[in-house]
Amino acid sequence: MCNWEQAWLAYEPIENQKDKKYFESVYTQQNGVLVESALREIKTAAEKLFSITVRRGENREEAGLILELNPALNLGKEGYQITEEEDRIYIRAAKENGLLYGTFRLLIMVSSRKEIAGISIREIPSNPVRMLNQWDNIDGSIERGYAGRSFFYENGKVCVTERIRDYARLLCSVGINGISINNVNVRNGAEWLISERHYKELEQISHIFAQYGISMYLCIDFAAPMTLGGLSCADPLKEEVKDWWEKKCGEIFGRLPNMGGFLVKADSEGRPGPFAYGRNHADGANMLARAVKPYGGTIIWRCFVYNCQQDWRDRRTDRACAGYDNFMPLDGKFDDNVILQIKNGPIDFQVREPVHPLFGGLQHTNQMLEVQIAQEYTGQQIDVCYLVPMWKEVLDFSTGCGKPEDTVADIISGRTFGQQRCGMAAVANTGRDANWTGHDLAGANLYGFGRLAFAPQLSAEEIASEWISLQISRDSDVNRSISDILLRSREVYEKYTAPLGIGFMVNPAHHYGPNPEGYEYSKWGTYHRADHLAVGVDRSAGGTGYSEQYFEKNAALFREKGTCPENLLLFFHRVPYTYRLHSGKTLIQHIYDSHFEGHEQVLQMQKDWELLEGRIPQHIFLRVKERFTRQVENSREWCDVINSFFYRKSMIPDEQGREIF
Amino acid sequence: MCNWEQAWLAYEPIENQKDKKYFESVYTQQNGVLVESALREIKTAAEKLFSITVRRGENREEAGLILELNPALNLGKEGYQITEEEDRIYIRAAKENGLLYGTFRLLIMVSSRKEIAGISIREIPSNPVRMLNQWDNIDGSIERGYAGRSFFYENGKVCVTERIRDYARLLCSVGINGISINNVNVRNGAEWLISERHYKELEQISHIFAQYGISMYLCIDFAAPMTLGGLSCADPLKEEVKDWWEKKCGEIFGRLPNMGGFLVKADSEGRPGPFAYGRNHADGANMLARAVKPYGGTIIWRCFVYNCQQDWRDRRTDRACAGYDNFMPLDGKFDDNVILQIKNGPIDFQVREPVHPLFGGLQHTNQMLEVQIAQEYTGQQIDVCYLVPMWKEVLDFSTGCGKPEDTVADIISGRTFGQQRCGMAAVANTGRDANWTGHDLAGANLYGFGRLAFAPQLSAEEIASEWISLQISRDSDVNRSISDILLRSREVYEKYTAPLGIGFMVNPAHHYGPNPEGYEYSKWGTYHRADHLAVGVDRSAGGTGYSEQYFEKNAALFREKGTCPENLLLFFHRVPYTYRLHSGKTLIQHIYDSHFEGHEQVLQMQKDWELLEGRIPQHIFLRVKERFTRQVENSREWCDVINSFFYRKSMIPDEQGREIF
Repeated sequence: MCNWEQAWLAYEPIENQKDKKYFESVYTQQNGVLVESALREIKTAAEKLFSITVRRGENREEAGLILELNPALNLGKEGYQITEEEDRIYIRAAKENGLLYGTFRLLIMVSSRKEIAGISIREIPSNPVRMLNQWDNIDGSIERGYAGRSFFYENGKVCVTERIRDYARLLCSVGINGISINNVNVRNGAEWLISERHYKELEQISHIFAQYGISMYLCIDFAAPMTLGGLSCADPLKEEVKDWWEKKCGEIFGRLPNMGGFLVKADSEGRPGPFAYGRNHADGANMLARAVKPYGGTIIWRCFVYNCQQDWRDRRTDRACAGYDNFMPLDGKFDDNVILQIKNGPIDFQVREPVHPLFGGLQHTNQMLEVQIAQEYTGQQIDVCYLVPMWKEVLDFSTGCGKPEDTVADIISGRTFGQQRCGMAAVANTGRDANWTGHDLAGANLYGFGRLAFAPQLSAEEIASEWISLQISRDSDVNRSISDILLRSREVYEKYTAPLGIGFMVNPAHHYGPNPEGYEYSKWGTYHRADHLAVGVDRSAGGTGYSEQYFEKNAALFREKGTCPENLLLFFHRVPYTYRLHSGKTLIQHIYDSHFEGHEQVLQMQKDWELLEGRIPQHIFLRVKERFTRQVENSREWCDVINSFFYRKSMIPDEQGREIF
Repeated sequence: MCNWEQAWLAYEPIENQKDKKYFESVYTQQNGVLVESALREIKTAAEKLFSITVRRGENREEAGLILELNPALNLGKEGYQITEEEDRIYIRAAKENGLLYGTFRLLIMVSSRKEIAGISIREIPSNPVRMLNQWDNIDGSIERGYAGRSFFYENGKVCVTERIRDYARLLCSVGINGISINNVNVRNGAEWLISERHYKELEQISHIFAQYGISMYLCIDFAAPMTLGGLSCADPLKEEVKDWWEKKCGEIFGRLPNMGGFLVKADSEGRPGPFAYGRNHADGANMLARAVKPYGGTIIWRCFVYNCQQDWRDRRTDRACAGYDNFMPLDGKFDDNVILQIKNGPIDFQVREPVHPLFGGLQHTNQMLEVQIAQEYTGQQIDVCYLVPMWKEVLDFSTGCGKPEDTVADIISGRTFGQQRCGMAAVANTGRDANWTGHDLAGANLYGFGRLAFAPQLSAEEIASEWISLQISRDSDVNRSISDILLRSREVYEKYTAPLGIGFMVNPAHHYGPNPEGYEYSKWGTYHRADHLAVGVDRSAGGTGYSEQYFEKNAALFREKGTCPENLLLFFHRVPYTYRLHSGKTLIQHIYDSHFEGHEQVLQMQKDWELLEGRIPQHIFLRVKERFTRQVENSREWCDVINSFFYRKSMIPDEQGREIF
């Protein structure tokens, strides 16, 4: 029994049958596993969309759809071209990967009612690596998972199910080509994934992903030579440690032929790493890189490194500075098959952060942008928060690094500094819930991440509209209503939560709901230091100096209150409540106003949703309706707590005399 | 292998052998299980104290120690008399229970080097019921347990071990005569304790406790007729529900002959109860009382009932009022075999609370005082906090209820209103740690509770000194040093934590360490509402009216700032930081001063402890030393966080210019 839905690959029947003709018969000379997947998908889609059974034609003249390799087209490994020529659709690519992506693109266009008569498109993915990070634990829980338990694990065992194939189809359909399938925090038995205990199941899973051009990665425990190997240390410069990893990698890559490599969280939030032996991150990463090199493997090394045992009394240490301080001195020191994975901002996936200064800073190092589709700090898939606009801001950020193509999108694609191993990674938001993502509208984030990683020039609007057509409704009025909700959702979320980039006013540990001082006297390095007169930490040149990690173009903006983008004002500066913003409002009045507005806008979104009853599938309507009820409650809580918190500190009344507690 | 210590029944060898003569031979005509336990204890003690083997004499003339029943002495069931007559010690009692208590008293006197030549004492316990509540869960964890895991349960099973016998000995030695052996929150399988699954082991445990005069109680799930019985409701007025309980009680009391009855947490913090059926607490308790009556059983019903889903915006609802509001209207409505168990204060075991107004209020209802030996809010057995002085304050509190004997001690003993079923209960602080209580000095609280429940007139100093002699050292200088630490410990703890009765400035959930706004915007009903000018909730007549739940004698004091005891000032009143205390200090300066003092006094206690090295058993010295290191850290954290919190709100500088962050 299949107790999950098909998300954007539902291929709901299409009334207008004009495109049916292309799918009566398909012709290709290729027979690889990827083309087999493409043909299977065409069959599935045509059956659902048009109620027809596709024939695989014997000769190309009969076929309406032709898949063919053509290395001369300069499409790279993964690019494709789709054209209509004499009433036939041709998908051409240099490799089977491109044929598979082209096939999914075509099917998605048909299913979302895009015009394909006369089609002529050519697409090459911008980013070489487009990867998902599952934070699934081997006990079946998911760290920061808000869509039910894991479909990869249960009670310490790896599960091989048909759901994984459907997941691979979904990911491939939006261009994802890598997946790490266990939590970066490798513990409680997950250390043993790279051992005989689990190879059999992992091989099966790896085989499924291979059929969709998706390389499988595993997160490893840096201390595995001790944990698994019984060695007395895990010092990356010790011969016995290198030997152990070399042997272990021979075993892993031998058993799991579709392995992409390892993703490593080391010396971060209590995870083991090279620091214990007086070695640096390059020592640690390169040792592993050499062990996987014979197999073409890659080491992805996370840059989320900071002191998580900070004394809140200490005003000199600034967590925001830590990533840059730790990794900039190592630029150029990493092997060619190491990629540094850098979070979009310097803190931790807050709703508003400046772009990480390592982008542009690191010029001789492979790098990937890490974003979080899982809505840890952005509503936990209870509150709607469409994240594509936020990711686009990051991608479009001009680093001022002195090259003509200097945006984050340029850098991670390899255009700026010529890297070959680079791209985007994202923490997945999926689980066993029937709709995969808990909140149905969170499906747009998973879909959007893939589309954006493949084609960053797409607009947030295009992506939203395409996804809605595929997963909810092809009706254009409905599409517009839901699109409206998605496109304003992040701004609304930002309004009712922590103001102007201050971040981290959340409940500790689970991170849902307001708690203005929840992290104020803690060890995590996230302080706002609000008092009776002002709030924020001065991160400018005269403060912790964080603003100076940017190239002058941006540092010049960030270091002054007057030029700092206002939505980041409280990230970079300590500001009196009476400070006047560009709007003419005082800071405190802005806080009051934006919080009341945010809550009211949630009420409006809820109303807008209610109007969709009867116009979209009822099960989707009801599930999202239930989420809006909770979001209304959450936004009211945020609004009242944040306003009361600042009022009780400042004692400055709301100019409009609204109720503050 | 016995991996636990003997606490205050260690019976360390005594050099001075002058009391040895009494223990060469013991004589008694009694042969019941309790006297057998007494004889066994005498044998154990004499062997350890004097290295002799006690003979049980054939005739009384030879014996140095004689145990005899004498119903004419008016000692009640549990009283005893110990006298020396012609070089022999006589322990006399009306019942075997008294003989056993007298025996332990004598052995404790000898072991603590009290003079017994010429002894002539007569003791009758003040409180009929003297009970421990274990909060042990069936999975082996302990709610609010700070001394290791449970020795009653492991992985869903009841454990029958020799440790339980030693526990029974410890409890009996200080006069405890009842124990409930599972957590009041009955869940995760503990519902099934009253079923065939566990009877066999429970019967064995019950038998062990029976040998020490300790009745066994079980906590039950009020919804058991549904959970266990498959009925569709648990309405206490429905015949099928009554029938189910009657049958079930027949089964339980048949299988477990030493059962005292049930302890029930109903309609409290999410537990099921009679409210679901529109019934009140009396309906619920009486239904159960009638089911256990044929077996002489008792229902102990907790009064810890309040709205734990409060909206923090709501300023009219006051959690402090809830217990009185819920139970006063039911005074006189409970059956004779129901006892209401009332926490010492109206909130929840804070380091400083007023005495619960139900004491004196309830005049026609059996009642017990509930205190918490487990140091949930008083340092979690990391920080030293000797609780006997606090309990004595509660016992000595004059309620003004209009009777000549009007203290809490009078009321719960039955002297004031003539109840027969009444007394004291306490949440235990024990677990699998070798020393039973995690912090060695927390042993004084367990010991002290028992002694105080038996003899409330004892002073905190006497109890401390006696316990130190038994468990740590008989040296009088050492005794004085440790006694000093114990006797100031609660005041010190109070100084560095939440000020002047405000309470609940702790980290949510685990309740250790400071978090001034941890419960401020929550559903738990514990708010301080600190702003720039003032702190506290007005609970006087003009505020929530809580002060008016007391008889006028106390209400008159509590309702005015000027007459309110200052250590409760912030419990009863909202007070500006600039308010002058009797000392002449402003409130804010008092907060700063007491917090700095509290932390300094911890450093002093730590120094005092260090001086004991070599003078007490090294394992105890080291264990407590380790705790002091943690207490120093904790007190510094409290001091700095609380001072910074109030400084950032008020912006009033410390007059002495000390560092506030």
